[in-house]
Amino acid sequence: MKSHTSINVRYAETDQMGIVHHSVYAIWFEAARTDWIRQLGMSYSQLEQSGILLPLVDLSCHFIDAAQYEDVLDVTAQISRLTPARIQFSYTVTNTATGRLLCTGSTTHAWVGENFKVISLKKHNPQLYALLSASIGEE
Amino acid sequence: MKSHTSINVRYAETDQMGIVHHSVYAIWFEAARTDWIRQLGMSYSQLEQSGILLPLVDLSCHFIDAAQYEDVLDVTAQISRLTPARIQFSYTVTNTATGRLLCTGSTTHAWVGENFKVISLKKHNPQLYALLSASIGEE
Amino acid sequence: MKSHTSINVRYAETDQMGIVHHSVYAIWFEAARTDWIRQLGMSYSQLEQSGILLPLVDLSCHFIDAAQYEDVLDVTAQISRLTPARIQFSYTVTNTATGRLLCTGSTTHAWVGENFKVISLKKHNPQLYALLSASIGEE
Amino acid sequence: MKSHTSINVRYAETDQMGIVHHSVYAIWFEAARTDWIRQLGMSYSQLEQSGILLPLVDLSCHFIDAAQYEDVLDVTAQISRLTPARIQFSYTVTNTATGRLLCTGSTTHAWVGENFKVISLKKHNPQLYALLSASIGEE
Repeated sequence: MKSHTSINVRYAETDQMGIVHHSVYAIWFEAARTDWIRQLGMSYSQLEQSGILLPLVDLSCHFIDAAQYEDVLDVTAQISRLTPARIQFSYTVTNTATGRLLCTGSTTHAWVGENFKVISLKKHNPQLYALLSASIGEE
Repeated sequence: MKSHTSINVRYAETDQMGIVHHSVYAIWFEAARTDWIRQLGMSYSQLEQSGILLPLVDLSCHFIDAAQYEDVLDVTAQISRLTPARIQFSYTVTNTATGRLLCTGSTTHAWVGENFKVISLKKHNPQLYALLSASIGEE
Repeated sequence: MKSHTSINVRYAETDQMGIVHHSVYAIWFEAARTDWIRQLGMSYSQLEQSGILLPLVDLSCHFIDAAQYEDVLDVTAQISRLTPARIQFSYTVTNTATGRLLCTGSTTHAWVGENFKVISLKKHNPQLYALLSASIGEE
Repeated sequence: MKSHTSINVRYAETDQMGIVHHSVYAIWFEAARTDWIRQLGMSYSQLEQSGILLPLVDLSCHFIDAAQYEDVLDVTAQISRLTPARIQFSYTVTNTATGRLLCTGSTTHAWVGENFKVISLKKHNPQLYALLSASIGEE
């Protein structure tokens, strides 16, 4: 399962090099993650309200080409790895008009409950764990 | 009582015009507000932990000249108005090297408690209200 | 002429109060301005490439209610004032699901050319000036 | 050669999880990089004005613990790798009060000239290349 999120590059997202600042891609990844979870049939807000948070453990971005103001981009998200304690998403950012790949990246998150205590999602919410497993073709 | 906060302009704060993006000044105002409250002898974190929040009601910025990457700026903050329900801060942003005034602004905040319910600070925390009143020369 | 821009609130746009940080509204106003100009039949990028910049002179925001993560918002933009040297836009931010007005604001911009020299748009680009005038019902 | 940059966490840098948003660390890394270059005896602004840009090719962050509003942090930067075409910086973010390590990261940059054309720094600016090489104990 892969989600697609359309992004219109904002002026404030550029820097004096005339291109989008690299810190912005992590924010787009997050918007894509939000859409991926919604496509799964729930919302990240609901997840948080149920007491589960997903803080980042690792972030990596590989920049291939620049995005510019007013570009329309397609950001894809999908799960690339799932364990009872962690989840990893992978992303691509593509310029919609040119089809050019601009950036690839991944984020690894820990499943945590109240006070940022690490939890096993498999025990804490077996239904969601099964749903996520199924989305990457695992039982 | 006026506070001074030193800001080093970050690359990410610039936009493709080659100057600091206007949305950043509100963030600097907030950093200055934090320092002003600390100078009063408390911290905004403590205030929040005591159940008082200060969401914005009004923001205004008047831009006179541009700030640029690596500029060192002096941001001043002071209270310009206080009522039991509201507090207004006023700010200036000056280029430290040239002495040139770049921006003036103000923010008006409501005193709210849990669930964003408006409160009277005078009733809720008379000590703090007296302290703030004294800082602008009122009894 | 009024433009409508749809905004999906991003997680990174929230702060620890659990609502969208006030500095973000200026960024949404800018996205709305971009759409307004595109609706006029040109792009702000083209305007910049023709040597005209529109730095802010004044920004004001009036906050009525909070926006939250995953909210879908409608941001409107329209010109509220035009002179040969300046242009003022006015904005509203509304929660699409509830219809509740969250924020109103305005930005005033100077027409400047190279090196941020103030220009008269009426002289510099009479066609664009006429087009903008027409959009607010002036001759 | 290692540089130290002091950061006061801003309210706008937090998100609704009550901690600093992960996208902000890349901005702090950049502030640390600016200080590292200044410690070398030049400024990144001068470098840019000489026609050399340093866009990112790779970014990685490993998050160990959270930073919070009003925390004072120490961000270190140093070069971890240098080739004629690329430079890699490594960073640490530590809570100054507790001494706790919060984040490690690295950024790899390409040396590019006008129009983002890749250049060999060794040919383009041998003096700077020698200076950078010396800073990591290479000839």
